[in-house]
Amino acid sequence: MDAGSQAPEPVTIRAVVAYDGTDFSGFQRQYEGLLTIGGLLEDAFARIFKRPTPVAAAGRTDSGVHASAQVISFPAPAHFPIERLPLAVKEHLPAAISIHEPCTVAAGWSARFAAVERRYVYLLHTARERHALRSRFYGIEYRGLDLERMRVAAGALVGRHDFRSFCGVPPNNGTERTLHELRIDRLDSQTVRFELRADGFLHRMVRITVGTLIETGCGRRRPEDMAQVLAARDRRRAGQTASAAGLYLAGVRYPDFEVFREPWL
Amino acid sequence: MDAGSQAPEPVTIRAVVAYDGTDFSGFQRQYEGLLTIGGLLEDAFARIFKRPTPVAAAGRTDSGVHASAQVISFPAPAHFPIERLPLAVKEHLPAAISIHEPCTVAAGWSARFAAVERRYVYLLHTARERHALRSRFYGIEYRGLDLERMRVAAGALVGRHDFRSFCGVPPNNGTERTLHELRIDRLDSQTVRFELRADGFLHRMVRITVGTLIETGCGRRRPEDMAQVLAARDRRRAGQTASAAGLYLAGVRYPDFEVFREPWL
Repeated sequence: MDAGSQAPEPVTIRAVVAYDGTDFSGFQRQYEGLLTIGGLLEDAFARIFKRPTPVAAAGRTDSGVHASAQVISFPAPAHFPIERLPLAVKEHLPAAISIHEPCTVAAGWSARFAAVERRYVYLLHTARERHALRSRFYGIEYRGLDLERMRVAAGALVGRHDFRSFCGVPPNNGTERTLHELRIDRLDSQTVRFELRADGFLHRMVRITVGTLIETGCGRRRPEDMAQVLAARDRRRAGQTASAAGLYLAGVRYPDFEVFREPWL
Repeated sequence: MDAGSQAPEPVTIRAVVAYDGTDFSGFQRQYEGLLTIGGLLEDAFARIFKRPTPVAAAGRTDSGVHASAQVISFPAPAHFPIERLPLAVKEHLPAAISIHEPCTVAAGWSARFAAVERRYVYLLHTARERHALRSRFYGIEYRGLDLERMRVAAGALVGRHDFRSFCGVPPNNGTERTLHELRIDRLDSQTVRFELRADGFLHRMVRITVGTLIETGCGRRRPEDMAQVLAARDRRRAGQTASAAGLYLAGVRYPDFEVFREPWL
């Protein structure tokens, strides 16, 4: 075979991905027949590039969780006009998944391993009644919430800690993480917004943290008990897992690149 | 039969309803097996009140159209604690439909016939690429739009006119309506918002109007031609029907009651 006729080395592409996670079984590809964001992206790229295309992602979001700014990386043929990708995927992906800002990066760069910070936003509809237009995109809490209580409790979590108490299934690389910030804001009379920034998050860590803070905010837990829940390293000491509907992977930071998108702006 | 054991006369209830219309075949009940907002409401009330419950609505929204504030009326047993209805319907309705502010009104009052003004909002995502989190709730237009051109064209439509050119299927009561206001605003670099207020709207009138304005805004029509399109009374002279995804019934006015809800506030 003539070496000159071989395809050139593939290039590495970075892109931002948004999705309405409601109807999908999370990001990570699982067995055949289960609709996952990652699986659908890999299948779409495979059809467009005409070769198998493994996708790496900054965050492996759970079933029902959304993204306003997930970051992915994948190989692509060197000749492919990458700026056309957002429109090219249209016929291969459901409308609930979209791709933005594709660009070529250093060969072998990984959206997963290069990430130094992930940002999650949790939106909570605080009303006695649910609201139809918010049902896919907000958690709901009908009990009154004292934000000051929640902020005091949140303060105990910021910093480097073993978050075993706030973890569903522990990973192989241990349960220590650094939580850089945990903000809680009331946006209006019916909306509370949480934002968490960390080097990495454990399985269900944001939802268990938000669930425990809600229980603190409505008076079922004392703010000063949060430090003990953390120290216990026991999932049973933390609160209920908040609904996936309110959670968004909203941004990722790399040494040389950062993206953040407020879910509803 | 003892007249004293008969059930008292039913009372008439007014309520505000919100829905994500994406997965439904419009408001009006049609044949069995087709999911309609009105049909689902009637079935839910029939189960709760244990009797057939016809529902009247201010606007018969089309397939895929949303409501942030639709108004309905229906009979209910006099003894039913109506303030509990928003929670009572939870187990009988999909999360994409919610009920708010139920109250007892004059016997026989009709949400449809008592209405003096309907307000529709149309949200347009103006970007070359679609966005996953907006796919259910925005129309999309990738061509650049000149809002001043659109506003000049819109001016020709305000007032009492025969809107036959902007009507899908004409109704029995003629095609004259009074358009009180047609506002066009740019909310941000990616969003244009239309608001239309009229005594009543014809079938597809908002979507055909928005579609024609979009064609004017991107230069495919001259603003000064709108008066001729209106005068022609011919659907073929108007533009394409804009996507249902961006359209919301956002408010209704009655002589003694008014409701308006901005879709995303």
